[in-house]
Amino acid sequence: MSGFVYRRRFAIEWGHCDPAGIVFNSRFFEFFDRSAWLMFEAALGVPPHELSKVYDIVGIPLVGSEAKFLYPCSFGDIVDTESRVSEIRRSSFEVAHKIFVGDTLAVEGLEKRVWAGKHPDDPSRMKAKAIPDEVLVKLRNE
Amino acid sequence: MSGFVYRRRFAIEWGHCDPAGIVFNSRFFEFFDRSAWLMFEAALGVPPHELSKVYDIVGIPLVGSEAKFLYPCSFGDIVDTESRVSEIRRSSFEVAHKIFVGDTLAVEGLEKRVWAGKHPDDPSRMKAKAIPDEVLVKLRNE
Amino acid sequence: MSGFVYRRRFAIEWGHCDPAGIVFNSRFFEFFDRSAWLMFEAALGVPPHELSKVYDIVGIPLVGSEAKFLYPCSFGDIVDTESRVSEIRRSSFEVAHKIFVGDTLAVEGLEKRVWAGKHPDDPSRMKAKAIPDEVLVKLRNE
Amino acid sequence: MSGFVYRRRFAIEWGHCDPAGIVFNSRFFEFFDRSAWLMFEAALGVPPHELSKVYDIVGIPLVGSEAKFLYPCSFGDIVDTESRVSEIRRSSFEVAHKIFVGDTLAVEGLEKRVWAGKHPDDPSRMKAKAIPDEVLVKLRNE
Repeated sequence: MSGFVYRRRFAIEWGHCDPAGIVFNSRFFEFFDRSAWLMFEAALGVPPHELSKVYDIVGIPLVGSEAKFLYPCSFGDIVDTESRVSEIRRSSFEVAHKIFVGDTLAVEGLEKRVWAGKHPDDPSRMKAKAIPDEVLVKLRNE
Repeated sequence: MSGFVYRRRFAIEWGHCDPAGIVFNSRFFEFFDRSAWLMFEAALGVPPHELSKVYDIVGIPLVGSEAKFLYPCSFGDIVDTESRVSEIRRSSFEVAHKIFVGDTLAVEGLEKRVWAGKHPDDPSRMKAKAIPDEVLVKLRNE
Repeated sequence: MSGFVYRRRFAIEWGHCDPAGIVFNSRFFEFFDRSAWLMFEAALGVPPHELSKVYDIVGIPLVGSEAKFLYPCSFGDIVDTESRVSEIRRSSFEVAHKIFVGDTLAVEGLEKRVWAGKHPDDPSRMKAKAIPDEVLVKLRNE
Repeated sequence: MSGFVYRRRFAIEWGHCDPAGIVFNSRFFEFFDRSAWLMFEAALGVPPHELSKVYDIVGIPLVGSEAKFLYPCSFGDIVDTESRVSEIRRSSFEVAHKIFVGDTLAVEGLEKRVWAGKHPDDPSRMKAKAIPDEVLVKLRNE
């Protein structure tokens, strides 16, 4: 599967960095989350804050996340990110993230997300539901 | 007015600090917010996540916040905080925060908060409402 | 004094927001900090991470910060910010920040910053030093 | 290998949570990081900010991190965490984290960290170095 790809470029901020002068690890998971929302918007044509309403879902919650830190990102670095739908199942999918500093691959990440609606028995909980065909087609970039 | 006082002690974490090795300014406003919630719990005997239900409010939102940074707080510092209800009006109040490193006053802050219910005309908005007498008495520490 | 002005536009992210669905207060101080760095770059023509080297300073630390929260910013809102050098003294200055949602002024902020070099007696500390004339001219936007 | 274990209990704060009312994913990686530092202190008897000096290292940087989100943590929840040294190699080790809400396992995490000194050829970079025997013994909890 090729999978939809979303790319963006942004600068590493002072507030992203720790006393070692490099991005504090939790910030990368913020970057992934932001990229995922923007990827949904680019793939589906629906702004992030309208996804729930348009698709009758509660959200697209993370059930897993991971990162490998290969090269430090420092204050002032301009980073290029690539976020790709790397696997799709009936009610869940994965997004593979890469962050580059110039040509150097600095961080590799993977998010596992679920297409989730309200739980039929308990409205305060979520339950995975089938991803609509029109969404599958777009995320697969077919 | 003396005003209810809440104190706590905690350590400055690696993730709180910026490349200068000192607490990044926005973190202090997280510390103030956390102290305010804990102060409500100590003064009112109601856990933070039950305040809305117990008092039929939407929340106690901030309408203003400020800080003076007098002395840097660094990774590993043990800080002592003092949060005092410094002024109370009919539907709003102020909380004065101090953060000490040892005997040194490092940060002075002030939060202005509103006792807020649902807006009668628009449930998505908030509207200040009168602070109940029993709450006034406790926040005033009378 | 007119003072140099820097404007930018960005979107409110999921991770910026709290359980009330609006931006958590500390995030606004991150936004101010980021705007200040970008304003320095726009005014001085020096990238943020090279300011120390170019001007022989340790940094431009905050000594005070404040905000008034006038209108909530929510997930998905596109905000416009304006950051203006509102006052300059010999070794310090103020930056006034405004954040708009559409035409609505949502947040007003003020940062007080110091032009700081190494303390002559203790290299681990900072000491205010005179802002160079070329910097004064640029920040004043004369 | 049994591995040193560190446990702590803390409350989920308002500022940790997102518009879904549950902890925003990046915050869990902050929790892991904090637990790791405190585990080092408990195991080695050295405060986090003195590790560099005592062991002549630059730090114990993360090279990988991952989490599975099994059950949501909400504002006001009291969580219990367990952080265990789950594997040790010559110059790196892993810390397995668990976060419980009551008896429910809410989050499982894994950090991969390196014992790092200054790079001999470039003081701005780091290089893995052998973990001292006395540290190995303590992290293995032998």
